[in-house]
Amino acid sequence: MTLFIKEYQKKVGLPPGTLIHIGHKKTDKSKISLITYNAENFEEKEITKIEDSYTKKEKTSIYWINIDGIHQTELIESVGKHFNIHPLVLADIVNTRHHPKIEDYEDYLFIVLKMIFFDDKTKENVSEQVSLILGPDYVITFQEQQGDVFDPIRDRLRTASGRIRKMGADYLAYCLIDTIIDNYFVIVEKMGEKVEDLEEELLNNPTQNTVKKIHKLKRNMIFLRRSVWPLREVTSSLERGESKLIQESTKIYLKDVYDHTIQVIDTIESSRDMLAGMLDIYLSSVSNKMNGIMKVLTIIATIFMPLTFIAGVYGMNFHNMPELSWSFGYPAVLILMLGIAIWMLAFFKRKDWL
Amino acid sequence: MTLFIKEYQKKVGLPPGTLIHIGHKKTDKSKISLITYNAENFEEKEITKIEDSYTKKEKTSIYWINIDGIHQTELIESVGKHFNIHPLVLADIVNTRHHPKIEDYEDYLFIVLKMIFFDDKTKENVSEQVSLILGPDYVITFQEQQGDVFDPIRDRLRTASGRIRKMGADYLAYCLIDTIIDNYFVIVEKMGEKVEDLEEELLNNPTQNTVKKIHKLKRNMIFLRRSVWPLREVTSSLERGESKLIQESTKIYLKDVYDHTIQVIDTIESSRDMLAGMLDIYLSSVSNKMNGIMKVLTIIATIFMPLTFIAGVYGMNFHNMPELSWSFGYPAVLILMLGIAIWMLAFFKRKDWL
Amino acid sequence: MTLFIKEYQKKVGLPPGTLIHIGHKKTDKSKISLITYNAENFEEKEITKIEDSYTKKEKTSIYWINIDGIHQTELIESVGKHFNIHPLVLADIVNTRHHPKIEDYEDYLFIVLKMIFFDDKTKENVSEQVSLILGPDYVITFQEQQGDVFDPIRDRLRTASGRIRKMGADYLAYCLIDTIIDNYFVIVEKMGEKVEDLEEELLNNPTQNTVKKIHKLKRNMIFLRRSVWPLREVTSSLERGESKLIQESTKIYLKDVYDHTIQVIDTIESSRDMLAGMLDIYLSSVSNKMNGIMKVLTIIATIFMPLTFIAGVYGMNFHNMPELSWSFGYPAVLILMLGIAIWMLAFFKRKDWL
Amino acid sequence: MTLFIKEYQKKVGLPPGTLIHIGHKKTDKSKISLITYNAENFEEKEITKIEDSYTKKEKTSIYWINIDGIHQTELIESVGKHFNIHPLVLADIVNTRHHPKIEDYEDYLFIVLKMIFFDDKTKENVSEQVSLILGPDYVITFQEQQGDVFDPIRDRLRTASGRIRKMGADYLAYCLIDTIIDNYFVIVEKMGEKVEDLEEELLNNPTQNTVKKIHKLKRNMIFLRRSVWPLREVTSSLERGESKLIQESTKIYLKDVYDHTIQVIDTIESSRDMLAGMLDIYLSSVSNKMNGIMKVLTIIATIFMPLTFIAGVYGMNFHNMPELSWSFGYPAVLILMLGIAIWMLAFFKRKDWL
Amino acid sequence: MTLFIKEYQKKVGLPPGTLIHIGHKKTDKSKISLITYNAENFEEKEITKIEDSYTKKEKTSIYWINIDGIHQTELIESVGKHFNIHPLVLADIVNTRHHPKIEDYEDYLFIVLKMIFFDDKTKENVSEQVSLILGPDYVITFQEQQGDVFDPIRDRLRTASGRIRKMGADYLAYCLIDTIIDNYFVIVEKMGEKVEDLEEELLNNPTQNTVKKIHKLKRNMIFLRRSVWPLREVTSSLERGESKLIQESTKIYLKDVYDHTIQVIDTIESSRDMLAGMLDIYLSSVSNKMNGIMKVLTIIATIFMPLTFIAGVYGMNFHNMPELSWSFGYPAVLILMLGIAIWMLAFFKRKDWL
Repeated sequence: MTLFIKEYQKKVGLPPGTLIHIGHKKTDKSKISLITYNAENFEEKEITKIEDSYTKKEKTSIYWINIDGIHQTELIESVGKHFNIHPLVLADIVNTRHHPKIEDYEDYLFIVLKMIFFDDKTKENVSEQVSLILGPDYVITFQEQQGDVFDPIRDRLRTASGRIRKMGADYLAYCLIDTIIDNYFVIVEKMGEKVEDLEEELLNNPTQNTVKKIHKLKRNMIFLRRSVWPLREVTSSLERGESKLIQESTKIYLKDVYDHTIQVIDTIESSRDMLAGMLDIYLSSVSNKMNGIMKVLTIIATIFMPLTFIAGVYGMNFHNMPELSWSFGYPAVLILMLGIAIWMLAFFKRKDWL
Repeated sequence: MTLFIKEYQKKVGLPPGTLIHIGHKKTDKSKISLITYNAENFEEKEITKIEDSYTKKEKTSIYWINIDGIHQTELIESVGKHFNIHPLVLADIVNTRHHPKIEDYEDYLFIVLKMIFFDDKTKENVSEQVSLILGPDYVITFQEQQGDVFDPIRDRLRTASGRIRKMGADYLAYCLIDTIIDNYFVIVEKMGEKVEDLEEELLNNPTQNTVKKIHKLKRNMIFLRRSVWPLREVTSSLERGESKLIQESTKIYLKDVYDHTIQVIDTIESSRDMLAGMLDIYLSSVSNKMNGIMKVLTIIATIFMPLTFIAGVYGMNFHNMPELSWSFGYPAVLILMLGIAIWMLAFFKRKDWL
Repeated sequence: MTLFIKEYQKKVGLPPGTLIHIGHKKTDKSKISLITYNAENFEEKEITKIEDSYTKKEKTSIYWINIDGIHQTELIESVGKHFNIHPLVLADIVNTRHHPKIEDYEDYLFIVLKMIFFDDKTKENVSEQVSLILGPDYVITFQEQQGDVFDPIRDRLRTASGRIRKMGADYLAYCLIDTIIDNYFVIVEKMGEKVEDLEEELLNNPTQNTVKKIHKLKRNMIFLRRSVWPLREVTSSLERGESKLIQESTKIYLKDVYDHTIQVIDTIESSRDMLAGMLDIYLSSVSNKMNGIMKVLTIIATIFMPLTFIAGVYGMNFHNMPELSWSFGYPAVLILMLGIAIWMLAFFKRKDWL
Repeated sequence: MTLFIKEYQKKVGLPPGTLIHIGHKKTDKSKISLITYNAENFEEKEITKIEDSYTKKEKTSIYWINIDGIHQTELIESVGKHFNIHPLVLADIVNTRHHPKIEDYEDYLFIVLKMIFFDDKTKENVSEQVSLILGPDYVITFQEQQGDVFDPIRDRLRTASGRIRKMGADYLAYCLIDTIIDNYFVIVEKMGEKVEDLEEELLNNPTQNTVKKIHKLKRNMIFLRRSVWPLREVTSSLERGESKLIQESTKIYLKDVYDHTIQVIDTIESSRDMLAGMLDIYLSSVSNKMNGIMKVLTIIATIFMPLTFIAGVYGMNFHNMPELSWSFGYPAVLILMLGIAIWMLAFFKRKDWL
Repeated sequence: MTLFIKEYQKKVGLPPGTLIHIGHKKTDKSKISLITYNAENFEEKEITKIEDSYTKKEKTSIYWINIDGIHQTELIESVGKHFNIHPLVLADIVNTRHHPKIEDYEDYLFIVLKMIFFDDKTKENVSEQVSLILGPDYVITFQEQQGDVFDPIRDRLRTASGRIRKMGADYLAYCLIDTIIDNYFVIVEKMGEKVEDLEEELLNNPTQNTVKKIHKLKRNMIFLRRSVWPLREVTSSLERGESKLIQESTKIYLKDVYDHTIQVIDTIESSRDMLAGMLDIYLSSVSNKMNGIMKVLTIIATIFMPLTFIAGVYGMNFHNMPELSWSFGYPAVLILMLGIAIWMLAFFKRKDWL
């Protein structure tokens, strides 16, 4: 996950609506899949030309066109032409640096979302931009690469489970959005676990490495926040249902999606609150350890410095040192030294340093 | 109290409205209790089938159906069918990871609340989700387990004390919500006491353990805040009384509930403000202790290092050291040493280190 | 001043509107004083039964009924009955844990305020709840104990100075509120002085005790803020004058009260801003002192360790140490030592440590 | 500049509208100057009685009455009487503890401003309250003392430069306000320079004195903020031009004033942002220096402690120490010591401490 | 980039609308370029008198007049006269200390923008004020010096690529604004890279220099924020299209510009969030290093102080020290010392200090 926009430079100075792919080319060749369904029928196929997918005449089925790979700008252009989509929308689709947003173009709604999932290989959260165009009887989805979180929906469409086959294109769009947001919960759960692990580590055995982990988690949190906060606007705008493309019966489901978004945001904020004070706790623990180290040093120095001094005194070579010739001089000095050491230890005991 | 959503993964990809219990199974078997009352009569019984509880014909009594245990999703489904409740509401009821919210479905209001009470056994605050459906002449409450804070209300219903028996279902709902919020005060009082104890400890004898306690309290505060803040929205929405299910005479009581919510929030915010600066005070106290330790070390080193050096000088084996053979050499050196020590102590006295 | 709600537990589960006194019992017996006045006449007496105070017929005078002591709930109930006041209002009057608020009950306005004054004995700010009911021709005030800040108003009523005797009950209510807020300035001035003293102390001679004072002041500030912020809402709501009980001519005075409230809030916020960074300055000063201590230690150690080492070398008992028998060996070593010491001091001078 | 309200106590308990001068008496005797002008004529004189200044009949000239010195409350009262001004306005004029505000009394606008200028003698910013009353054909200004920033306006009036002589009283008021705000830029520029100097000092050679300077600047910033923020409200309210006293042609100039206010606020906020993190940088630099000191100490101790120990070993008086009689014992030990020292230095080199 | 207003003093006291150039004189002589175009024709030339550029009669072409250099106030005045522009607008044009803003003067829109680009020579971001006046069929741009980011637009005009030649003056204005904002992305990308580099440095090898870099970046961020935040207001006001000068077809493009502004702001905020905690991480790392240093010192002292003491004891000159004459006394003491050293090391091992 990168926090900062890159490659934008490519676009500077070009006329608006110029299609320039910004982002990593994550797949080799774009792929178009078409699912046509209504309450009775279901058809699923792969096509090569967008013109084969949909004609405006037939009105009895719902069309879901999914395009994996957005770096072939000529394909995106042909989609734009066939469905009569504004060039700025197309430019937004091929630019993967967008934040979630919704735009109402009367004939269709344009929605940008971020699909976030945990990559088992890199052990990192991966973010992929999904653009969605909702028309009266079609949904077009654009993804950066193959593989997504929509398989359960395809299964539901195939098996006609739930109400999905009986409802319109807006309900399909809702299902897609809902699935993406549901996946945030998985990310957020994982992050919550990490925060709790870190908390444990922090209170029991903090190291400089803990600081790095806290920093990394904060970084991820900033990224996640940025992806999720605008979603609030998107889902609330859908739920208020100002577009005629959203039917009344779907709105209650969109309210549910909005609730989920709020819940995700809320959990992210709680994690942030948790992380916020952690560095201070680390600092207090480091200071505490320092105090411990200093105590050891001070105790050692305070005991042995006077003793070494006394030994030094009786190591002087003055001719006239009567104590040296006393027969009990040596044991007396040893006892004196012991006494000083005990007295010092008692002093530290009283000061609660031991 | 857990801060983070868990088990959500179960739900990912399922059709909306699928009933999946999310949360700990806190009770073995669900239990349905039914209380029927009006100004004259009162009846209380346990039933096994929801269909026995209520028929739409009779309009002279108020029905309070309480269900303990929400993991038996087929029971929740039968309730939904009997009272004609939207599947999304049912899905919300069995998912215990919700924040307080209110939804208006015209025929009924759906309210989610968090009942928080102090568990004497675990010495922890325990949170239980209570879902409440308010219809024209019935209230259905769903709880995670048996045992709740509603006994005083049951008593008032039985003894017909107060106005509760004379009022409608909306007043019963108000009483339930009021009781839940009243219990927050108890939690908040306990927390306030802890904050004050911690303050005392912090100013008099702070240890690393104090830091852990502060952290734990902050954590609880984050949790509590999350449960209480949305309540504000819920109670204010009730008080504004946009629903026709809320009678005019009940609104003034709901305003009172709103006031209470504000008071709870306010106290939580004060606690947060108090906790916010505490770690800094701890750090300042640790730094101060460190200064004390360093002073001891420095005083000892500064006194004994020069003395030991002098002793070392006269311990050298040079043949030609005239002082060694002076008869007053030894006492002279001892006096010199004493003088240095006294001078050093005076120096530290002047520096205010002693 | 206590920050946290206490004794609330008493109320949990009771029917709404039950009168339970929450707070310290600050006086033994409640006292009712009645002041009746109009432009011509003024009468002041103490009564024992509320029924003696006011009858609805007469409309030519303004009645100010002041009740000291709110723990006798039966008295409060009789007031409620006589003036036809809602039970929830009465319950609010006897619960001293409220924040300032205003409620419009059409026939009367209910206002809760906090009277704050500095107690010369305990050297603490003391807070007392004052509830005020404003009717068409009467004002009822409820105080926790005898003694208040309203004596100047009584004097003005007695001597008929200012316009107070010519105006209605709303103007009397304004005068009472204005006097309470005027007293905040005194508190706030005192606090400002403390902040400035603390600032002085912090910059010149900070000790751990300074930290405790900062903390205490912050605490008081949190309390004061909580009492004053809601006042803003109260006074602005009065000034907007939505109630028919407030005459047009009084509104301009209420705007003045609102201005004063803003000024008090503003001063509190400035104090907060001042206090906010103070602990950091303390920490920086402690760190600085630590640096000073460490410098002393390091200078001493760095000078005497090499010297002691040299003395140690010539204290070794090797048979074959030619230097020992040189006749200038001893003075040469002493000069060498002096040279090292001087060189070290020059080094520290250059490092700006001396 | 004082941050906190003082002397307010004087006012507590007095009837509203009582004229009590709050503030320093900055001048001995109040002075009234009158400027009368229209497109053709200009007259400037000093008067002693306000009644001489203006009569309501004549409508062909604009009157600017300026009063220096507000402690003579009887003069202010006579102004109030002559121009029919509300007593609360007069009370506000003589109380210099106000924040900028605007009040619309239909017949006139009452505006309170703070004139801030740098006093070359005390090297402090000085703040003076300017109250301004704008009537249909007159402007009255009240200042705490003689000397102000309005001389350029007087010059423009005298020389008839610019449009000022052709416009109404509202344009004159605009000019006065504009001049006051223009002077803020001078203050703000000075402050900006100080912040930049402090930044330089902080990064190159921070001392405890830097902390005091930062604190003082923060303090000034808090004061300035408090004076400037309410101006935003004042100028925006003027610009929206709700009062009939403001002509349409003047509004565009008032928008310009509003823009300037925003710019001043913006610069203050930037300064605050700059100052906010400075103490942390100081702390990091102190910590860094501490590390340097500790390194010196540790290096010295680590090198000389082992060497002194070895010298001590060969200073022991055991009869049977074969090394002592070896002829190369002494040089061998010296070489050993040198080796240890070099090895230690290499160790610290590797640890990057040298 | 300077954060603070300077040279403002020049303006204080002058009549409003006086043209005073505030800013660096960045070019010697002002230059006027004129581009005239419509769908068929394109003409580009340099002119010397503004009166040659445009007459109000012809309505078939769009005029873009660009003026480099704004210090020649008489030129700006002649433009104002020719196009009938308000003097305050002209005063704003020659004052380069403005923040982005938009003002609607019915006949024309006045927009102030900041063009920010990276200067390869000074390695600093450079900011230049661009003022833009949009009339019905003309756009006038004022720049501080020659050289800008508009060359791609000139190319598009010349080659008639894109829709620019077919659209009105509002579309040209949009293109100019869009290009300026596109350049922000380049700045923001660079800044993002620096933040990431700093992060790397901070976690791996932080020095006091890192602190200075963090501070410098924060400073730049404050500056950038100030330039970009008001843009939000400007673009959103354009997009809402309240002016009749903006055609409906252009609004969708302005919405795109608004989106870009939001994206830039968002990235700046993320950078700020990243930078915010960095100093704390530095402090934690310094504290950690200090702990390491102290450990070394303590270990050395704790090992050698007791050993040196023992050596000191057997260096005493008492006559009666039986151990001295034992034949195994010396090796026994050496073994004792070794034992103590090993025991100490084991102790530190156990304490996890090694």
